[in-house]
Amino acid sequence: MPTTRQIVLNSRPDGWVTPDNFRIAEAEVPPLDEGDVLVRHLYMSVDPYMRGLMNDGGVAYASGFQIDAPLFGRVIGVVDSSRNPDFSEGDCVYGMLDWAEWSVARGGESLRKVDPDLAPLSHYLGTLGFPGLTAYVGMMLIGKPKDGETVYVSAASGAVGQVAGQLARIAGARVIGSAGSDEKVRFFTNECGFHDGFNYRTVPSIPEALRLFCSDGIDVNFENVGGANLDAVLAHANPFARFAMCGMISQYNLKEPYHLRNVNEIVSKRLHVQGFVVRDHSHLIESFIEETAEHIRSGRMSVAEDIVNGFENAPDAFIGMLKGENLGKRVVKIADL
Amino acid sequence: MPTTRQIVLNSRPDGWVTPDNFRIAEAEVPPLDEGDVLVRHLYMSVDPYMRGLMNDGGVAYASGFQIDAPLFGRVIGVVDSSRNPDFSEGDCVYGMLDWAEWSVARGGESLRKVDPDLAPLSHYLGTLGFPGLTAYVGMMLIGKPKDGETVYVSAASGAVGQVAGQLARIAGARVIGSAGSDEKVRFFTNECGFHDGFNYRTVPSIPEALRLFCSDGIDVNFENVGGANLDAVLAHANPFARFAMCGMISQYNLKEPYHLRNVNEIVSKRLHVQGFVVRDHSHLIESFIEETAEHIRSGRMSVAEDIVNGFENAPDAFIGMLKGENLGKRVVKIADL
Repeated sequence: MPTTRQIVLNSRPDGWVTPDNFRIAEAEVPPLDEGDVLVRHLYMSVDPYMRGLMNDGGVAYASGFQIDAPLFGRVIGVVDSSRNPDFSEGDCVYGMLDWAEWSVARGGESLRKVDPDLAPLSHYLGTLGFPGLTAYVGMMLIGKPKDGETVYVSAASGAVGQVAGQLARIAGARVIGSAGSDEKVRFFTNECGFHDGFNYRTVPSIPEALRLFCSDGIDVNFENVGGANLDAVLAHANPFARFAMCGMISQYNLKEPYHLRNVNEIVSKRLHVQGFVVRDHSHLIESFIEETAEHIRSGRMSVAEDIVNGFENAPDAFIGMLKGENLGKRVVKIADL
Repeated sequence: MPTTRQIVLNSRPDGWVTPDNFRIAEAEVPPLDEGDVLVRHLYMSVDPYMRGLMNDGGVAYASGFQIDAPLFGRVIGVVDSSRNPDFSEGDCVYGMLDWAEWSVARGGESLRKVDPDLAPLSHYLGTLGFPGLTAYVGMMLIGKPKDGETVYVSAASGAVGQVAGQLARIAGARVIGSAGSDEKVRFFTNECGFHDGFNYRTVPSIPEALRLFCSDGIDVNFENVGGANLDAVLAHANPFARFAMCGMISQYNLKEPYHLRNVNEIVSKRLHVQGFVVRDHSHLIESFIEETAEHIRSGRMSVAEDIVNGFENAPDAFIGMLKGENLGKRVVKIADL
């Protein structure tokens, strides 16, 4: 069996994640038992939700990473050898696997075949993966935008935001985005067909930007950011607006969270504020991929990826993503197919 | 036609409501046109939502009171004379009418007959009225408590809270309440069958009280208070908990609202936080009254009212209610039938 590099949790972050929270370790890949699959990793995903897993105790929906153990996340790989009848050498697979170059999927657990002919493999970590499904669940099952309504998406060029906004546009809504650079705003307006949007770092204030860009109010808020963004949307929302509460990336590295002022609006505006986590909806992934691949093929949906090369760069890629450095879905490329 | 005293809005409150925000005026009752109904008022309701209507511009769901015009609210009265075929002299009626001793319901608008034999007339402003229906909508249509779940109700002895908790108890849930005096806690535990509860003014902290009294977490939160109460419930809620966001009485008289810290919990716990306003559900009132009168008749549901005598005492009754002086639904008695 080969040996593999792994990225293990060296220490827990206290506020912002730092490179010394990680270290690279060398490990032997164990032999396969009946049912096991040996996977050579090609791409791995860095996603905002992982920040919560670095805390002691993890989050409400998942236990977290353990000190001195490898981190784990979404990986695309290729089957090197298999003692599982469902997987054969050469199959491309998705799995929830270690941050490593190689790993053994015990009993084939969490593995699912992906089709390299349908789309570039990296897409299965983004638009055709759980970030895309996250966008679908939040926008279509919770937000339910109607023709002519105004939809607002924060972190709109990100892995989830770009899909969320495009799904709303396809549904006939007017879609406004926000992001942290002019380049990102150009991407989601020019490439993704958002109707308009703004760079939250350069507008005078988010409330003022919302009044300007969402002059009919907001009917659906797809919340990726939290904090001051959420406060401004609460104040600017229309009665009966739906809030798909996907994440709050502005908050994950703060020792003291932002203190929200405008919660009172929930009652008088009869807001529907719904938190969700994509893993509760993973049974939808195959039909989602089929539908979304067709959107991409027909040109109705664009995809932006931000690929960082080199396994050893994963910690920096993750930290940079939390800071908003990436344009589009950030993945780490580990090896060629 | 008789003359009538009215209570008019003298000035808008700046923070807490004060007696000089009101004044008593004398007015002539206008003659009846075709379709009109002259009502002699018996009881009028003072409710937390009215605080929002005192602000300039009112609230999202209703325009507010006008300076120098009478306040208006829910009234029980008796028809004195009628030029409307749907109402006859002597009918007991509910209506959204002026804070006055007499008023004319133009075209009979907002009037509905109530049955004085089914229950004391004042009940139609509380348990058998919109406060009761508010409790029903929030608890049964949003909270949807299941057998064995833990339901937490703040302001639990109030007009809405007492009904909300009893509906949850009838549905088989374990019901915990909180209120601002030991007497109120005794009322909702001894009379209303709440399983337990606490006086939020005397516990060491609300988070600690919730850990003690809701040791299995909270599955349904019926939010009447907001502020620190809501923050503590967010932290203590179970995954997939439902929040029926009925009101935030702790916030209505603050110049600067409480700043909420624990909003991040909405995502990871997949909370369903739903604001609502009873007027969107007023078509349910007749069937609600029928069902709830049966609960009262059978002894499954208790009613506590706090009746203040004298029309001229309405402003003080309202201010006292906002401060939590009342035990049970506060109504102002204006006249005998």
